[in-house]
Amino acid sequence: MMSVYKIISYYFSLQESKSFALSIFRGQVATAQVFPYPSVLNDEQEEFLRELVGPCSKFFEEVNDPAKNDALEKVEDHTMEGLKEMGAFGLQVPAELGGVGLTNTQYARLVEIVGSHDLGVGITLGAHQSSKEKYLPKLASGTKSSEHIAAYCLTEPTSGSDAASIRTTAVPSPCGQYFTLNGGKLWISNGGLAEIFTVFMKDKITAFIVERSFGGVTNGPPEKKMGIKASNTAEVYFDNVRVPADCVLGEVGGGFKVAMNILNNGRFGMAAALSGTMKGVIAKAVDHAANRTQFGNKIHTYGVIQEKLARMVMLQYVTESMAYMISGNMDSGATEFQNEAAISKIFASEAAWTVTDECIQVLGGMGFMKDTGVERVMRDLRIFRIFEGANDILRLFVALNGFQNAGIQLKSLQKALKNPLGNASLLAGEITKRAKRKAGMSTGLTLQGSVHPELAHSGELTVKAIEQFGTVVEELLIKHGKKIIEWPTVAIDLYAMVVVLSRASRSLSQGLPSAQHEKMMCETWCTEVRCTEIQSTAQILQIHSYLDFTFYV
Amino acid sequence: MMSVYKIISYYFSLQESKSFALSIFRGQVATAQVFPYPSVLNDEQEEFLRELVGPCSKFFEEVNDPAKNDALEKVEDHTMEGLKEMGAFGLQVPAELGGVGLTNTQYARLVEIVGSHDLGVGITLGAHQSSKEKYLPKLASGTKSSEHIAAYCLTEPTSGSDAASIRTTAVPSPCGQYFTLNGGKLWISNGGLAEIFTVFMKDKITAFIVERSFGGVTNGPPEKKMGIKASNTAEVYFDNVRVPADCVLGEVGGGFKVAMNILNNGRFGMAAALSGTMKGVIAKAVDHAANRTQFGNKIHTYGVIQEKLARMVMLQYVTESMAYMISGNMDSGATEFQNEAAISKIFASEAAWTVTDECIQVLGGMGFMKDTGVERVMRDLRIFRIFEGANDILRLFVALNGFQNAGIQLKSLQKALKNPLGNASLLAGEITKRAKRKAGMSTGLTLQGSVHPELAHSGELTVKAIEQFGTVVEELLIKHGKKIIEWPTVAIDLYAMVVVLSRASRSLSQGLPSAQHEKMMCETWCTEVRCTEIQSTAQILQIHSYLDFTFYV
Repeated sequence: MMSVYKIISYYFSLQESKSFALSIFRGQVATAQVFPYPSVLNDEQEEFLRELVGPCSKFFEEVNDPAKNDALEKVEDHTMEGLKEMGAFGLQVPAELGGVGLTNTQYARLVEIVGSHDLGVGITLGAHQSSKEKYLPKLASGTKSSEHIAAYCLTEPTSGSDAASIRTTAVPSPCGQYFTLNGGKLWISNGGLAEIFTVFMKDKITAFIVERSFGGVTNGPPEKKMGIKASNTAEVYFDNVRVPADCVLGEVGGGFKVAMNILNNGRFGMAAALSGTMKGVIAKAVDHAANRTQFGNKIHTYGVIQEKLARMVMLQYVTESMAYMISGNMDSGATEFQNEAAISKIFASEAAWTVTDECIQVLGGMGFMKDTGVERVMRDLRIFRIFEGANDILRLFVALNGFQNAGIQLKSLQKALKNPLGNASLLAGEITKRAKRKAGMSTGLTLQGSVHPELAHSGELTVKAIEQFGTVVEELLIKHGKKIIEWPTVAIDLYAMVVVLSRASRSLSQGLPSAQHEKMMCETWCTEVRCTEIQSTAQILQIHSYLDFTFYV
Repeated sequence: MMSVYKIISYYFSLQESKSFALSIFRGQVATAQVFPYPSVLNDEQEEFLRELVGPCSKFFEEVNDPAKNDALEKVEDHTMEGLKEMGAFGLQVPAELGGVGLTNTQYARLVEIVGSHDLGVGITLGAHQSSKEKYLPKLASGTKSSEHIAAYCLTEPTSGSDAASIRTTAVPSPCGQYFTLNGGKLWISNGGLAEIFTVFMKDKITAFIVERSFGGVTNGPPEKKMGIKASNTAEVYFDNVRVPADCVLGEVGGGFKVAMNILNNGRFGMAAALSGTMKGVIAKAVDHAANRTQFGNKIHTYGVIQEKLARMVMLQYVTESMAYMISGNMDSGATEFQNEAAISKIFASEAAWTVTDECIQVLGGMGFMKDTGVERVMRDLRIFRIFEGANDILRLFVALNGFQNAGIQLKSLQKALKNPLGNASLLAGEITKRAKRKAGMSTGLTLQGSVHPELAHSGELTVKAIEQFGTVVEELLIKHGKKIIEWPTVAIDLYAMVVVLSRASRSLSQGLPSAQHEKMMCETWCTEVRCTEIQSTAQILQIHSYLDFTFYV
């Protein structure tokens, strides 16, 4: 009986998980963190924030010159000085240690301003922020910290997304008083500027705070990049660096958790910055559309432009909403937001990319010219889908987290089935729910009470979508088709189909060495276009079998 | 009777239209230009092409330096000289006039090599090509032409996609011997280098060949651009330029047709160049995937990378197939390929963009670094979706052409209905066909005989897709939803839905000024996600009513 008890209690503990983004993998809705929308600032905090917004905006409008930073491939010296004076390198450092002492939500708001003007500066601040302030008490340099720039050193030549494969070494001294660090790190933001480094070394991965003043820390020249040129990116080398034992962050061997926590806690900041970027870019698109005449009318009067602008605005709105929901959750002391943070990073980096790409399309040739300043934003943005967790990897992370969550629940059910009499009511409830879902009936999930009555319809759509998603997860129909569906695209794709059909036919007739390969591509192409664009079969489902569902039929 | 006769004969002339891309708008399949896949080179032409491919590739591998051209913002002088010596500025100039005398298909093959190495050089050659060689006999400078660089001058500050709105003027002299040109042109490729200009002036739009040697032709400094920096882009000014009357291309007032013909005839070249670009980029992605280890394995062993590479290869294959089908059609004397040419431009520019973007994603941080050379390709590519007909406008063009074609047919039918007895057999056939389509039965369309038996299934899918497309066109269900559908995207979107639901709820409760706007965005977002990703309703259909279909029920 004990084990069944354990299973059920584990099951219920999972049901109570506060993460919305995990709960949907179980076909449930954990509303605690998502309703109501967080309003976490008290009057004083709001007032303080309001006092900061003006000067910060003014600084970026009047002092910082993003085009010049881009051309110089560094933040101009007087801008850097101004940022330090404003306290931009101590935004979340407690006031008693000389910092500005911002909450996450206040920080998000300021970062949005930075992101709307200069992502190169944003990276300089963000890389600093993510790697220092949480561990401030560990810093030997103490209150100097609000002037010293910091860097986060994780990536190595052989380890990009695979953080666990780092090779740099930290050897403990026989006396236990210090560690000796050796190795090199790649693509380190602020690598050439920083005085303080958060470094991850091999030895089950341990995190260290390393100061340049310890000696033996050097760096390579600034990397030549597509964008975020204003931010310094360099290799950092550690040559027999002696680090005091109390500079270990967390525990020896606990560095992976530290690395992930830093990334996790920093993601809302990226979403906030990119929300700001989108605002800036949309303003340029709207301005151009309102003033540019083509075919006898201002172009904002055309449906195709209106639709673009509407989508851009919508994407910005969603991103901004995510950023402040997560910063609000964090300020309220939430701890289960890693899936949400990852989602916000993926969503924001892709939305900002799409919005900026569309802005250039609205601007036409103008958008391709340096003077307009949007091409720089596009170059800057390209790295956001790659660094701090490549989106492709983060997608797997989001899904894996979700499936593990759902999978554990189902396995517990599976075990409970072996003692059905002891678990009758639990099983009865579950079986009824599944049967209802399969029949397309409501399972009793609802957002009524949480959602405003005027949004009842959208709420119902969301609930239905969640129910269906839960069903899909349960049935492990994991692989979905991906296609951009647009009206004239159908005509284009039909032409594409017939072109490849024709060519592959010839190759087969002629017995070319490539014929079978061409046939495969042709068939894949035709099937995909057919499935996703014509039949409206948007999901190409592929059944994975690593979880066993034969127990319910 | 006469008018009905006319209608029917017009109807049949439309049925016989050779353009596949037009025929599908009528739910038909014009196979003449698409089956079999064109093989237009004779042995001699093939041999000649083979002799050119080697030296051309060698030149781009050993002499041309794309990174240096990009940094210098011009094609290096010795490279330019080498290109001229190779005859690259006279590729389609007849051999008897000192050119290389290539067919369109031969030209496409060489352009593919250029496109795989340096799109900046590609633009330099392409802008020259499109604006000179077709009109060679008009050139005062005669055989010198294979050395002199040409430019195509259409765009003005107020006219981008709207070519009809140009303002530059050409005033005929009282004696009729010459025209006096005044005005300025914007974003002219080769504008700072060219000796010969194809210029479009106001006066119902007339095209002129203008030589710099005529006097009064000047240009501005090179524009600062995101990409294709190696190619010169400049404003060109005409200040009382006296142009002999025999330098008019086509007829006075016939310039719009000339402009469209030049663009139309040049589009296969862009598809060919970008096919080459994709080959180059895919090679880099494959090389990286085969050598990069992450999570203990070479990354090409992971499904997510394999899928990316497979899609990249497929897109390249489709683009290449389009380029050579159109060049082959042109070499066979086809005249009805403007929709196909436009489609190839749209498809190629978007496919190359997607492929290069994915290559960077596969390369990770490496792809963002200048040394790898892919970020330059991405910067170069951004303009291809904008210039020579912005893709958004070309989409309308493709659709409008198609609908006009189908619409005219339907209108003729509608008129024929007023005299049903006189047109019985025509109507009977049509009505049966429509009824069959509606019932999902075959209308007798087939690609059997054209398609290789091994591809019969793909052929059937294509036919069904065409039938359904024809039905959709007929019912004028014009507006389709557009969404990228991916598995973890569903989780992301669900989170996005609930986030905006929550935030908009709060705004409504608080009565914020933005509340109604937020509500609208929230509802749109939820409906879209629901429709396109969960319900698999990929097409959000919107009924347009500018054609009347009440006559068949």
